[in-house]
Amino acid sequence: MKSAISSLVSSKHRSLNLHLNHSPFSNSISYSKTLSHKSTFIPVIPLNNNTSFSNRTLKLKIQATKSVSTMASSFKPEQARAPPAVPLPKPPVTKITVTTDKERNIAHARKMIEEAAAKGAKLVVLPEIWNSPYSNDSFPAYAEDIDAGGDASPSTAMLSEVARLLKITIVGGSVPERSGDRLYNTCCIFGSDGKLKAKHRKIHLFDIDIPGKITFMESKTLTAGETPTVVDTDVGRIGVGICYDIRFQELAMIYAARGAHLLCYPGAFNMTTGPLHWELLQRARAADNQLYVATCSPARDPSAGYIAWGHSTLVGPFGEVLATTEHDEDIVMAEIDYSMMELRRASLPTIKQRRGDLYQLVDIQRLNS
Amino acid sequence: MKSAISSLVSSKHRSLNLHLNHSPFSNSISYSKTLSHKSTFIPVIPLNNNTSFSNRTLKLKIQATKSVSTMASSFKPEQARAPPAVPLPKPPVTKITVTTDKERNIAHARKMIEEAAAKGAKLVVLPEIWNSPYSNDSFPAYAEDIDAGGDASPSTAMLSEVARLLKITIVGGSVPERSGDRLYNTCCIFGSDGKLKAKHRKIHLFDIDIPGKITFMESKTLTAGETPTVVDTDVGRIGVGICYDIRFQELAMIYAARGAHLLCYPGAFNMTTGPLHWELLQRARAADNQLYVATCSPARDPSAGYIAWGHSTLVGPFGEVLATTEHDEDIVMAEIDYSMMELRRASLPTIKQRRGDLYQLVDIQRLNS
Repeated sequence: MKSAISSLVSSKHRSLNLHLNHSPFSNSISYSKTLSHKSTFIPVIPLNNNTSFSNRTLKLKIQATKSVSTMASSFKPEQARAPPAVPLPKPPVTKITVTTDKERNIAHARKMIEEAAAKGAKLVVLPEIWNSPYSNDSFPAYAEDIDAGGDASPSTAMLSEVARLLKITIVGGSVPERSGDRLYNTCCIFGSDGKLKAKHRKIHLFDIDIPGKITFMESKTLTAGETPTVVDTDVGRIGVGICYDIRFQELAMIYAARGAHLLCYPGAFNMTTGPLHWELLQRARAADNQLYVATCSPARDPSAGYIAWGHSTLVGPFGEVLATTEHDEDIVMAEIDYSMMELRRASLPTIKQRRGDLYQLVDIQRLNS
Repeated sequence: MKSAISSLVSSKHRSLNLHLNHSPFSNSISYSKTLSHKSTFIPVIPLNNNTSFSNRTLKLKIQATKSVSTMASSFKPEQARAPPAVPLPKPPVTKITVTTDKERNIAHARKMIEEAAAKGAKLVVLPEIWNSPYSNDSFPAYAEDIDAGGDASPSTAMLSEVARLLKITIVGGSVPERSGDRLYNTCCIFGSDGKLKAKHRKIHLFDIDIPGKITFMESKTLTAGETPTVVDTDVGRIGVGICYDIRFQELAMIYAARGAHLLCYPGAFNMTTGPLHWELLQRARAADNQLYVATCSPARDPSAGYIAWGHSTLVGPFGEVLATTEHDEDIVMAEIDYSMMELRRASLPTIKQRRGDLYQLVDIQRLNS
C-alpha cells in the first residue's frame, strides 16, 4: 500500500509528497482487506503555492447492521432526531478518491486535478478560498458570480469543465461569491457530468477575537448562508460545511440524520485555532456521528496576512485519523470503506441508544419541508 | 507551582504521585496568574488497589463577556436551545480542589479523602463503580440501597459523613444501587454539609459489541436512569454523567444550556475504547460547550475481568488537557479558573452564533417543567 502511493507529484513550486499516515487505531480496522480491493490511487491538486491535498479511495460494501436492543420502549430514540433520521443510503459506487488542495492559480489547479484524475481520482476536495487571499479586503475583488457562470466565474467554470471531462466529483473548496450586492463564502459541488449539484454558502461566519492571537470578522464583508447542504454524488452522500461551520456540532448531527456518509469541510484554521481544535473537531464530528470526515486546508504561507494551519486530514467513523499531512503543499491519500460505518454503528449502536425522551435535535428546514 | 504540589501521598498499596501535566496550549491560558491565587492542593482518594485521583482547585473570577454580534436577526440563536439557555451562574466559592480515585476498600477511600481534605481539597471526584468489580455478576452482590442509607448503603454513608466532617463536596463516582427490584449505576453528589444533593443514575447503559475486542451489556442487569442531573454545589454548577453517558453529546449540550460550569464523568473506559475515545470525548465536550470537564477512571488492574483504561483527566474550556495521568493509581491536580470560561466564550462566541433558524436542541424535561 505504502509503496503503491509513494510516488511524487511535482508542482511548479515544490514537490508534492504522497503521505499515508496510519492512525494508532488502524489495527482495529480491517485495513488490509480494504486495500486488497483498491485499484487506483490519486494524487491530485494543483493550486498555487500553498496547497494541500487528500486522495481517498472509497470502497463500498454495506454490511448488515447488528442490532443491539437496549432501550426501554419509553426511551423513544427514534424521536431524538426530528424529523426521524433517514436510513443510511447505499452509496452508488464502489471506489472514489478524494483529493484536496489549495492554490490561487486556476490553471495550476486544473493541471493538478488532471494529473490526479489520470491516476484514478474520483473525488477531489479543494480548500477554503483557494482562488483568493483570505482577507476581507480580497473577498470583494476576487468574488465571482457563480450563478452567471462562464466568464463571470472562471474558477467554477474550470471546476465544472474538468469534472465533466475527467468524470470526477469535485467538492470545490470555496471561493468568494458575489450574488447581487452580497458576498458569500461558497462551496460548489460538481458532479461527474460537470453539472453544479449543490452550492453551500458558509452558514456560520468566522467572527472570533482571541486577544493577542487572532481576530477576524468575516461578517464585515460576507453574508451567511441560509441552508445546510447535503448532496448525493457518484461517490456517496456528502454533507458540506466550510471551516467555522465545523464548530457547530448541530450541523454535523443534522447531516448524519440526513444520511450523510461523508462530511467535507474545506477550511482554513489558523496558527492559534489550528493546533487547538482542527483535528479535535474533525475527530469529534466523525466519532460522534460515526461517519467519515474529510478536511482540506490551504498549506501554510508564513508571508500571508492570514496564516493557515494546514493539516488536511481524513478521519474514519471511529474518530481515527486515516491520513493527514503537515502544513506544506502535500497530497494525502487514503481509502474510505463505507462498510466501516455500518460496522462501527453495529459495534457502538449509539444511534439506537439515544434518549429521545430526554433530548431532541430539531432539523428545522427538514421538519418544515 | 510544580514544587508546591510535588509532594507524595502514600497509600497502603503504592505511593500516589501528584502530577501536573501542562497542556501544549497552556501558553494561551493565564496559568501563572491563576496559580498565584491558589493556596491549597489536595491529594486524595482512597479506594483499594486500582485508584486514580484528580485534584483540582477552582478559582472564580467572572469577567465581563465581550460581545461579538454577527448574526442577522433572523438567525434566532436564542432558539437553538429550547427552552433558552440560562445565563451562566456565578460560582459560589473561590477555590475548590477536585480529587479522584478508585479503590474497592471503603475504609481506605475514607482515609485518603481525609488526607486530601487536610491539604485543602474542596471537591473530590471518585471513579465509576469504585466499591465493586465492574461486572454484571458483581452488580447485584455489591448493590446498596442508597435511599435507605445507613447500614443499607455503607459506601454512600461513608461519603456523606466524610463530606460533612471535612466540609467538602463529593461527586461520589458510582456504585451499584438497588431500588426495589431494579439495579442502577448511580452517582451520589454530597454537599459540604453531608447531605445528598443529587443522585444521577446512568442514563445511557453501556451496551457495546466490538467483535474480538470488547463486549459488555449493562442492560443485562441494570436499568437506565430517567433524568439528566445538574446540581448546584459549593464549588459550582455541575452536570453529571457516568461513563457511556459521555458519548451522547446531547447530554453535555443540555448541561451547558442549563448553565453548568463543570461536567463530571466518572467512567471506566476499557483497553479498546479508552485509547480510541476517552480523551477525545472529554476534549470535544469541553471545547464544544466551552466548559470544564473532569473525568475519573479506575486505575488499570490487568488481572480484573474488565480492564480499565485509566487516564483521569481535567480538560479546560478550550478543550485543553490541564492535567492527566497514566493508568496506575495516581493523583491528578490542577486548578480550575471559571473566569476562563467567560474568556473563551468571549473569544469564540459560538453561543451567540448558533443558527436557531436551522437547528434546535430540545431539552424535553426542562421544556415540560
